[in-house]
Amino acid sequence: MTEAEAERRLRRLGLAPEDVRVLVEHFAEADRRGKASHGLARVAWLEAQAFDPRARPRRVAAEACFDRWDGAGALGYLTLDAVCRSLLDDAPSEPRLVVAERCFPTGALGLWARRLAEGGLIALLTATSPRRLPHPEGGPPLTGTNPLAIAVPSSDGEPAVSDVSMGAVTHGDVLAGTARPEELVPFGGPHAHKAFALAVGLELLVGALAGPEPAAVLLVARPGHDPVPALRARAAGLRLPGDA
Amino acid sequence: MTEAEAERRLRRLGLAPEDVRVLVEHFAEADRRGKASHGLARVAWLEAQAFDPRARPRRVAAEACFDRWDGAGALGYLTLDAVCRSLLDDAPSEPRLVVAERCFPTGALGLWARRLAEGGLIALLTATSPRRLPHPEGGPPLTGTNPLAIAVPSSDGEPAVSDVSMGAVTHGDVLAGTARPEELVPFGGPHAHKAFALAVGLELLVGALAGPEPAAVLLVARPGHDPVPALRARAAGLRLPGDA
Repeated sequence: MTEAEAERRLRRLGLAPEDVRVLVEHFAEADRRGKASHGLARVAWLEAQAFDPRARPRRVAAEACFDRWDGAGALGYLTLDAVCRSLLDDAPSEPRLVVAERCFPTGALGLWARRLAEGGLIALLTATSPRRLPHPEGGPPLTGTNPLAIAVPSSDGEPAVSDVSMGAVTHGDVLAGTARPEELVPFGGPHAHKAFALAVGLELLVGALAGPEPAAVLLVARPGHDPVPALRARAAGLRLPGDA
Repeated sequence: MTEAEAERRLRRLGLAPEDVRVLVEHFAEADRRGKASHGLARVAWLEAQAFDPRARPRRVAAEACFDRWDGAGALGYLTLDAVCRSLLDDAPSEPRLVVAERCFPTGALGLWARRLAEGGLIALLTATSPRRLPHPEGGPPLTGTNPLAIAVPSSDGEPAVSDVSMGAVTHGDVLAGTARPEELVPFGGPHAHKAFALAVGLELLVGALAGPEPAAVLLVARPGHDPVPALRARAAGLRLPGDA
């Protein structure tokens, strides 16, 4: 699908032009960065979802160290875009926790974290999603795939960005038919209890801050040090997370 | 080793009685919770380390949303103990980021996070350590094993605690001879790039906030919701992370 076709189809869903731009930019960048399950193929998926194309995310609290947003029925992409814009327009001098309630779908978390790091902020971002991962011993799904993204600015230009989902495959892979539903388990094989524990910890962290619906939690802070160039030098050309 | 023997041997290293109590309680609890590589066996390891038994951690900055501590040559256990005591004595009403510079060794991170959650705080805690994990494609060690611990209070009594190191085995296992050094790689087998990416992200997060020496980063916040009982009910008896 081309970006132009994606724009046309998203406009037909009733989304405003500026919201369509946010979505298409996110999907196209996900495709460019090899995250095709969050890419333009999501347009067809969105066409099958029920959502209010006119809903707007709202910042419902702004405390000294803390923002709370409510997706309020808007697509999670639009909530995270609004969160990023607010933080980049007025970058906090102290660390800040942002809780975005009712925030789904959130797309490729690493892209939001990267944008914040390109603006000079360290970002740690996680999000819950519908329960799809079972316990390594089996049973019903207990957690979302609950990715964790961390982005750190670098004086050499490109931030370092890690973005890891706790599933062995993605739900997008299952939707695309490139993975079977039963492959959507915590990654790690004999160490799957580790990925499962991470998924549970993140599920409960987000749940305790944001409630039972899928939501996102973001920590931003200004860096005091510049560790990326030294790590890149030590890696001596090996590909690091988030590298093109 | 008994706790009494551990106390005697730690006292002989020149540690003050109250510091010895902190260490022995941490080691004994690690043993009780199946984290033997952070247990009383560490006493013999400490006897072989060079450290100043009289060094005291210092809080060097206390901002609105942020504390900075300096281990100042003290054992990391003592720094994290001081951090926990300060947060539990005067629990912050807003989210708070705590950076503990020069904080090593940190022991079983889940135990510190559990203590904070028993005091009513959500805790997310990570720490760097000497570089031991190579890239999945090989090469020199690039990151520490960089555990991530998350603890969430629960109205049913016990907090939920996940505590995951990114190594397939622990350095303690290697020290104890139960694992070979070449097994100390990112966990996950064919998905080892995921555990490696998590280790890199946490390494750079801590490095950007605390500098190049091993250090710890902690986020605490008060919960607004109580998600643990519902997850335990859904798990229907399956063991969840941190359960006894």
